[in-house]
Amino acid sequence: MFQVNENYLKLPGSYLFSTVGRKQREYQAAHPDKKVIRLSIGDVTQPLAPVILDALHKAVDEMGQAETFRGYAPDLGYEFLRNAIAENDYKARGCDISADEIFVSDGAKCDCSNIQEIFSLNNRIAVCDPVYPVYVDSNVMAGRAGDYNPMTETWGDVIYMPCTEANGFSPEFPKETPDIIYLCFPNNPTGATISKDRLQEWVDYANKNGAVILYDAAYEAYISEENIPHSIYECEGARTCAIEMRSFSKNAGFTGVRLGFTVIPKELKAGDVSLHSLWARRHGTKYNGAPYIIQRAGEAVYSPEGKKQLKEQVAYYMNNAHYIYNNLKDAGFQVSGGVNAPYIWLKTPKGMTSWEFFDYLLENANVVGTPGSGFGPSGEHFFRLTAFGSYESTVEAIERIRKMPL
Amino acid sequence: MFQVNENYLKLPGSYLFSTVGRKQREYQAAHPDKKVIRLSIGDVTQPLAPVILDALHKAVDEMGQAETFRGYAPDLGYEFLRNAIAENDYKARGCDISADEIFVSDGAKCDCSNIQEIFSLNNRIAVCDPVYPVYVDSNVMAGRAGDYNPMTETWGDVIYMPCTEANGFSPEFPKETPDIIYLCFPNNPTGATISKDRLQEWVDYANKNGAVILYDAAYEAYISEENIPHSIYECEGARTCAIEMRSFSKNAGFTGVRLGFTVIPKELKAGDVSLHSLWARRHGTKYNGAPYIIQRAGEAVYSPEGKKQLKEQVAYYMNNAHYIYNNLKDAGFQVSGGVNAPYIWLKTPKGMTSWEFFDYLLENANVVGTPGSGFGPSGEHFFRLTAFGSYESTVEAIERIRKMPL
Repeated sequence: MFQVNENYLKLPGSYLFSTVGRKQREYQAAHPDKKVIRLSIGDVTQPLAPVILDALHKAVDEMGQAETFRGYAPDLGYEFLRNAIAENDYKARGCDISADEIFVSDGAKCDCSNIQEIFSLNNRIAVCDPVYPVYVDSNVMAGRAGDYNPMTETWGDVIYMPCTEANGFSPEFPKETPDIIYLCFPNNPTGATISKDRLQEWVDYANKNGAVILYDAAYEAYISEENIPHSIYECEGARTCAIEMRSFSKNAGFTGVRLGFTVIPKELKAGDVSLHSLWARRHGTKYNGAPYIIQRAGEAVYSPEGKKQLKEQVAYYMNNAHYIYNNLKDAGFQVSGGVNAPYIWLKTPKGMTSWEFFDYLLENANVVGTPGSGFGPSGEHFFRLTAFGSYESTVEAIERIRKMPL
Repeated sequence: MFQVNENYLKLPGSYLFSTVGRKQREYQAAHPDKKVIRLSIGDVTQPLAPVILDALHKAVDEMGQAETFRGYAPDLGYEFLRNAIAENDYKARGCDISADEIFVSDGAKCDCSNIQEIFSLNNRIAVCDPVYPVYVDSNVMAGRAGDYNPMTETWGDVIYMPCTEANGFSPEFPKETPDIIYLCFPNNPTGATISKDRLQEWVDYANKNGAVILYDAAYEAYISEENIPHSIYECEGARTCAIEMRSFSKNAGFTGVRLGFTVIPKELKAGDVSLHSLWARRHGTKYNGAPYIIQRAGEAVYSPEGKKQLKEQVAYYMNNAHYIYNNLKDAGFQVSGGVNAPYIWLKTPKGMTSWEFFDYLLENANVVGTPGSGFGPSGEHFFRLTAFGSYESTVEAIERIRKMPL
């Protein structure tokens, strides 16, 4: 008699964003006259840039001619895209990463959740708290997280690194030594960044302790300040301890287009075994490449015209971020993030729990955000708002929040 | 100190098709004047049908307008596509499958390799021998296959079901009772089919023994004969024991476009736990949906014009299959498959091993095929040729094989 993976049954409730979506739909169904504004899931709203559309149309045409039709893509992705990534995201920033260390995929969510597969189940993971839920949930499913404690809302075998007001939402080195460290900067959900000096300390810590850092840089395009690293490979020694994951979702509006990549330097080894070779094996065996037409769209992101158009798109969202940040601050809310990231991290007023504030906001302002506690226990009493709406709906949402009785 | 997943290290050599590709490239590099023809990997060569191109262009245009732009897709896939699948692939064949039992993905390879994740590591799998290597390899990586025996080229904890000339390449019930049974019909690599009566016996066997059947129907569009089931849900009782996986790669030429789906009926349960809910959780947590524009292309496959154009495309490849089959038979080779499948299964001449024949064919005819032994020990002394080339190159390849000294 077949049996299920018992680890799945340990997961409490549903995935955070599914619950947020359900609550929104239920409220909307009960109040069909209300116009609910979503500042919740990190989903973009601006149409694809013209240069991306041109690349897609051109690639579709190629697929219609026998001479230019493309079947299965190369395992690691097309060279034209991997070269563009190596050149623009890495070499241009002085990072020593070559095209054959880049694995193209259909998005950072898949990569973030699949990457744990190449590690031993005995490894201990450390995560920022709060953090994007996929890191922990994928380890739970694999059986690496231990048991859930509903009182503390933590997993027994996971090392939590609190990111709090006290430490400026930048984690300290944990008391127990982890094997695998997930870092995400600019951070989802807090919008906090890490300085280059501090990230260098993390790289040194990982090299000293034989740990590997899984660095999620999905939001690097939103960095506006100097001395904030865009890649972990700006730090010395990162090639022997760090894997970096990137997405086209937030810098190019590809949430519905699906493209991302993972970088694994060839020096990154456990004894004789290179993690690059293991991930290559996984790609070859369990994945079949991102669509050709979408890899061409990714290439267009790096064209001069693409860079210009997407800089404007990022600026559009960052204008929203500044609007949210400034106006909520004016209104007396305690806010952070929003400077180098599209996320505003709000302290809930009057000691409300995150979910209490979620319900309060939905009912009184018809605005949907994401409860901070859904990202980890240290997110309790916080709330995430995103800058990915249209300017008009963002302004309206913030006006409603300001008028809300508190 | 971090450690790697030791199961990966058990895998012998590289993925079959990577080895085939490497050998081809090496030969070509050493003989730049030779024109090598590939009848190896199951990759299509015909351009996308006009109706698919139209759907892609239209969807790209939608992504360029704020009103019609689409971000993250629904977890299970867009309703327009799931409805089209339910209606055309299932209801039209009398199968009781509803749209919300269909999970859209980026291809059957990912689904085939990820589906094992929702099962216990203690479950025993049974596979046809020979078979598409992804079933076994993904279980090896997860730690469900035991140890590799290089003498027998088998895994200790895997139940092999030989598909041989003696049983017409249709497996018998295994001596040991499996928990999970992988079946693939029309079969890759043998091109063999299963009758509806025989598949019904498998469904009854699974229900009686509490096993689940993972049914890979990627090649159903190539079925030309009557009484060959296109779906396992044509059999009574399949809703309580079977998961079906389908691909758009072979019926619509989507190998470079990437689209597939998995069906999990809601009655399929282990005790109280529905496999549908586990797979939904996996989709929500570790996957972010197939691209919108590609789901629209998938929808076009089911339009009246799409059905007509793709029927012609399948007929084109099947014409190649018949050409290969008939001409090699004429030339004295022992061949099977090729009637309801795009694969021809060839017995190697003069007792050559599969890899000996691979080298012999590459050197003497400059034709690349796939060694049968790469699909499992019972594939030894067999060889797979595919019908996915152009007609012209297929004819030339077969002419060369006929002229080859033997």
